Amino acid sequence: MSEVAGRMAIQQGAKYLEMAQGGHGILLGGVPGVDPGTVVIIGGGIVGINAAKMACGLGAKVYILDMNLERLRYLSDVMPSNCFLLMSKPSTVRRLIKEADVVVGAVLIPGAKAPKLLTRQMLKTMKKGAVLVDVAIDQGGCFETSKATTHGKPIYKVEGVVHYCVANMPGAVPKTSTLALTNATLPYALEIANKGWKKAMKQNPEIKLGANIVKGKVTYQGVADAFGLKCTPIERLLK
Amino acid sequence: MSEVAGRMAIQQGAKYLEMAQGGHGILLGGVPGVDPGTVVIIGGGIVGINAAKMACGLGAKVYILDMNLERLRYLSDVMPSNCFLLMSKPSTVRRLIKEADVVVGAVLIPGAKAPKLLTRQMLKTMKKGAVLVDVAIDQGGCFETSKATTHGKPIYKVEGVVHYCVANMPGAVPKTSTLALTNATLPYALEIANKGWKKAMKQNPEIKLGANIVKGKVTYQGVADAFGLKCTPIERLLK
Amino acid sequence: MSEVAGRMAIQQGAKYLEMAQGGHGILLGGVPGVDPGTVVIIGGGIVGINAAKMACGLGAKVYILDMNLERLRYLSDVMPSNCFLLMSKPSTVRRLIKEADVVVGAVLIPGAKAPKLLTRQMLKTMKKGAVLVDVAIDQGGCFETSKATTHGKPIYKVEGVVHYCVANMPGAVPKTSTLALTNATLPYALEIANKGWKKAMKQNPEIKLGANIVKGKVTYQGVADAFGLKCTPIERLLK
Amino acid sequence: MSEVAGRMAIQQGAKYLEMAQGGHGILLGGVPGVDPGTVVIIGGGIVGINAAKMACGLGAKVYILDMNLERLRYLSDVMPSNCFLLMSKPSTVRRLIKEADVVVGAVLIPGAKAPKLLTRQMLKTMKKGAVLVDVAIDQGGCFETSKATTHGKPIYKVEGVVHYCVANMPGAVPKTSTLALTNATLPYALEIANKGWKKAMKQNPEIKLGANIVKGKVTYQGVADAFGLKCTPIERLLK
Amino acid sequence: MSEVAGRMAIQQGAKYLEMAQGGHGILLGGVPGVDPGTVVIIGGGIVGINAAKMACGLGAKVYILDMNLERLRYLSDVMPSNCFLLMSKPSTVRRLIKEADVVVGAVLIPGAKAPKLLTRQMLKTMKKGAVLVDVAIDQGGCFETSKATTHGKPIYKVEGVVHYCVANMPGAVPKTSTLALTNATLPYALEIANKGWKKAMKQNPEIKLGANIVKGKVTYQGVADAFGLKCTPIERLLK
Amino acid sequence: MSEVAGRMAIQQGAKYLEMAQGGHGILLGGVPGVDPGTVVIIGGGIVGINAAKMACGLGAKVYILDMNLERLRYLSDVMPSNCFLLMSKPSTVRRLIKEADVVVGAVLIPGAKAPKLLTRQMLKTMKKGAVLVDVAIDQGGCFETSKATTHGKPIYKVEGVVHYCVANMPGAVPKTSTLALTNATLPYALEIANKGWKKAMKQNPEIKLGANIVKGKVTYQGVADAFGLKCTPIERLLK
Repeated sequence: MSEVAGRMAIQQGAKYLEMAQGGHGILLGGVPGVDPGTVVIIGGGIVGINAAKMACGLGAKVYILDMNLERLRYLSDVMPSNCFLLMSKPSTVRRLIKEADVVVGAVLIPGAKAPKLLTRQMLKTMKKGAVLVDVAIDQGGCFETSKATTHGKPIYKVEGVVHYCVANMPGAVPKTSTLALTNATLPYALEIANKGWKKAMKQNPEIKLGANIVKGKVTYQGVADAFGLKCTPIERLLK
Repeated sequence: MSEVAGRMAIQQGAKYLEMAQGGHGILLGGVPGVDPGTVVIIGGGIVGINAAKMACGLGAKVYILDMNLERLRYLSDVMPSNCFLLMSKPSTVRRLIKEADVVVGAVLIPGAKAPKLLTRQMLKTMKKGAVLVDVAIDQGGCFETSKATTHGKPIYKVEGVVHYCVANMPGAVPKTSTLALTNATLPYALEIANKGWKKAMKQNPEIKLGANIVKGKVTYQGVADAFGLKCTPIERLLK
Repeated sequence: MSEVAGRMAIQQGAKYLEMAQGGHGILLGGVPGVDPGTVVIIGGGIVGINAAKMACGLGAKVYILDMNLERLRYLSDVMPSNCFLLMSKPSTVRRLIKEADVVVGAVLIPGAKAPKLLTRQMLKTMKKGAVLVDVAIDQGGCFETSKATTHGKPIYKVEGVVHYCVANMPGAVPKTSTLALTNATLPYALEIANKGWKKAMKQNPEIKLGANIVKGKVTYQGVADAFGLKCTPIERLLK
Repeated sequence: MSEVAGRMAIQQGAKYLEMAQGGHGILLGGVPGVDPGTVVIIGGGIVGINAAKMACGLGAKVYILDMNLERLRYLSDVMPSNCFLLMSKPSTVRRLIKEADVVVGAVLIPGAKAPKLLTRQMLKTMKKGAVLVDVAIDQGGCFETSKATTHGKPIYKVEGVVHYCVANMPGAVPKTSTLALTNATLPYALEIANKGWKKAMKQNPEIKLGANIVKGKVTYQGVADAFGLKCTPIERLLK
Repeated sequence: MSEVAGRMAIQQGAKYLEMAQGGHGILLGGVPGVDPGTVVIIGGGIVGINAAKMACGLGAKVYILDMNLERLRYLSDVMPSNCFLLMSKPSTVRRLIKEADVVVGAVLIPGAKAPKLLTRQMLKTMKKGAVLVDVAIDQGGCFETSKATTHGKPIYKVEGVVHYCVANMPGAVPKTSTLALTNATLPYALEIANKGWKKAMKQNPEIKLGANIVKGKVTYQGVADAFGLKCTPIERLLK
Repeated sequence: MSEVAGRMAIQQGAKYLEMAQGGHGILLGGVPGVDPGTVVIIGGGIVGINAAKMACGLGAKVYILDMNLERLRYLSDVMPSNCFLLMSKPSTVRRLIKEADVVVGAVLIPGAKAPKLLTRQMLKTMKKGAVLVDVAIDQGGCFETSKATTHGKPIYKVEGVVHYCVANMPGAVPKTSTLALTNATLPYALEIANKGWKKAMKQNPEIKLGANIVKGKVTYQGVADAFGLKCTPIERLLK
């Protein structure tokens, strides 16, 4: 689903840059003779690469920030030439958001709360009418000023900056999302259906790792940490 | 401004494919493992090529239909490989709209009414929740069922197909549009300002051609035809 | 050798689409103004990616079907934009073969018989004069109607669909194939020559894995299964 | 039709490089680790650019030779990076054919005999089993050793070099060719049908230029020259 | 020769960015994780497009400024995506040179002095150790502070900005330049040799246009203006 | 730092091809109508891929030679089409250097002396004025005739071939290099600073592997071999 969310992020960013939607009225891709917009994507994982592909495809000036040098090297092999790759550092974030038209928060730490990358203070240095899209909102959001919103009322403004923080972004395109989800999960579902959940978990470590709660007990460390609960090793519950 | 309108057309098409906006809920670019959407662009001029670039950039399956073989050859030299180029014929239009998710009407005949490319009857063969974007709406629209709409209430449905027919599409991104317009018109404006309109028209045929009404008389054949008025040769009025 | 076979598959597919060769007389890449052909490649491994690159290079509309989401993601990073990537499911195969001009069977399960992807019944839904290329023919073929053929008499028709099932496709381009084979095998050959086969197998698990028969006994499970023979663990024979 | 012929030229070149077909047994695109073939295309017009696109798409090392610097500049803007662009000079032709695997003769002078680019003597410097494809065969051929052949018996060898000189190459893919031809000619056909041939010729210079014989007299200078006949100015016959 | 000069401009710009050469020590293309340099090219003609292709190929962030909207549209069709296209205006020049690492002056008005695009005052806003390359130096240069230099001593600094103003840039690569020059001029030379210069000039307007001095009199308006001499219409001298 | 060195290698190669610098006076990228230069890169690791990207970006004809088939496959997925990929064999090296304008030695065996790829004898078959760039010079160089040089006096000639063997190539662009180095090493530096070197080495095998000398004893096998010293297992010294 990360792929759907990453791609949607740019579609939403482009839309909310329209003046009637609250943005400062620029076209993300520009036109010949007029500057395109600048997109800053924090995090170069599945969400980030998919957001970047869409933004590059529209002709924007795109930056991906990531902390993993191996990942940056791979991205430099496969991304189009309007995608610029930078090591993620606080000073780099602070420098780039000043010229950004769209900022995508794409830092996900599996099963844990997302780190806060932009503070309210930093928003003051941004352009009025720029757009933040927080893809990590399901895990608490990666901007200090993020609060989950809905498809019904998707945006709000803080310091003049549009915030798009819809908690279930892929829900806007259910046909694509359902197929994507099925593609990703069907193999596991079939295994669970064929073997029963206990046997499937015993035999396939990936399925075991996917368990969050078993017999009423939290079995995933990240979730336990996020909610301040105790974590029970799943092995004890599979006997 | 055609470039802005062409690029906006895909941005709007992608947006109104979202289920909450009335579309059938697919992501134009698909994701790995799930089919992308199909975009049919009728007309391969400035509007069409710009729409196609955006749609290709998002990863859609894109068709441009045009009647000019020389233009199709040029497009085959410069467009990305997910842009398929077809001679525009009624049978081809009828075949492609059945699988289209977005149809862009980009046929502009300078100064004249646009031809009607899609009839109400043909809409019945389209997918429910597909989106029509009529960029020719300022000249009467190129779909039978098109009626001008506004940024405030941009869409309506006919036969289950979303119609986006905003009369002034570039108005949504005024910063980009104003710069684009200035780029295109400033040379003429300077010449008119420096020489006066009469002398400028006498010396520069392009400026003369741009005149629609001079001293209260229609001087452009296409406009005269469109409104059923008499056309006065501009030369008589420039003496 | 899989690379040679994958690339050859498209060259043969294009050739047998010619009317004099039995095909329905279309040019795989189309021309500006005329639709290109559609190529469906089942299996996105080495054979599939090489077939897809050639088909994309000729300008066709290309689909790769694969069951591994990680592989599809990688392909989406590196393939040209006229390559569409789908999760392989029976329903998807059934839908796509109806519009296919060339279908490439590229599903190889190392050392085992290939699964049957297309039944005779499904052929009836295909276009007359479309072409099937079965690259898995050396392992029994992945279409129900496949029978091994030779470079001398490479094709036959079933239900009007051309079948190209040459058992040793790379044999048609021996210069390229010999170099490719040498590149792939020389390191192992040198190791075996230097150490003797027994020592080489003991020290290099890849060489050990490559053994099919040792001292008259089948040592590779897949081969044993395919021919209904008993499999002897190779470790016993290396003492 | 030039587009079909240009694209077919590479398809045939690739095929006749196969050893069983008379070629020296290489795969035009090579594979990772093994050199691709070298394609030399003499003439960078419609035929040449289409041949080059196919050859580049297959991964070959491709040279286009042309005498028009403006055309070379345009080609350098739109062709892929494995297409190398050279001024056509006899010394360049002589140098490149030595390393060529496929040579495409794509020099067409409208309505006149093609010039002879390769002599029998020059063939001796080429690789045995290389392939010549003469797309200008309908106008006498652009290699000294070219003789028109048919789809039934398409090739012969001179000095060990395979000659493919089928007089009607697009005839092999009649579906694509018929559509391409219709696209190119329908506008003229409609005009002739609507106005009658005389009036159409009087009003449309392109149609007038297309006439080869009117009322039994040759009206096209190139054709008259080629066959040693007298040319009658068409204007006299249109009265 | 403009193509050689344009391409050399970037090669020289990259070199003089090295610290030992006087530049501020950055690599034009950056590396994954580190920002590439910014290249600003003023003028999008033959010099400009060739400079831009090289700079884009090295991975820099590249801007072309031009005043012709049609040219910008064409460039947007053929240039890579890290080439951003802007209408040339004094305000745009002033904004971009602040972040530029290399500025290429590529404004050539045939036969006339080049306009002054950058003043000494504007240099003060640039980075210390940035590099200016003035390709128009043969026509007086397009920066206020340009003075012709030689390959022996190619650079000097003004306001901390490196100036590269070698009068005959293509002289550094004489093999390539001689061939390029021959390609461009041989057709004219042959015509002059075959017909004599007078007849060649009478029959071929391009050759006539190329004359600067005939029988001791200046015949080219631009040259006459540049040196304050009288211009004699060439027609009078050809009788 | 390998990325900086690889990219610099082509920048230097292009520069020393200039005639005034000792080269034979060609432009690496050629121009439309004139052949580009040929670049041969021995070694397809980080240095090699970065050198190849720059050379391809300039429009040269580029060969990468590598002995690892998996690496060649990956390169064939991500490199531009003017990059030709060959298995590295002595016979291939000998064949290609004859037509090479720039040869980049990019074979690094971590912590060991580089192998000698080109002998003095082989230089005699190369073009006079071609350029060798030895990126492995810090480890003894990978050409027989390489001797370390400095940025002050970077080149010398042997058998008419320019040798560029600067020991610290990235030192020419210190801004880019310092940032690149920081990006690569900061995570380790932070860990060592936080934990102390002993604990960091115990907990993080990558840091342990990075140690060359501990308490006066060589702990890295490759270094010990290169200098003929004894190697002490690091585990003994961490207690």
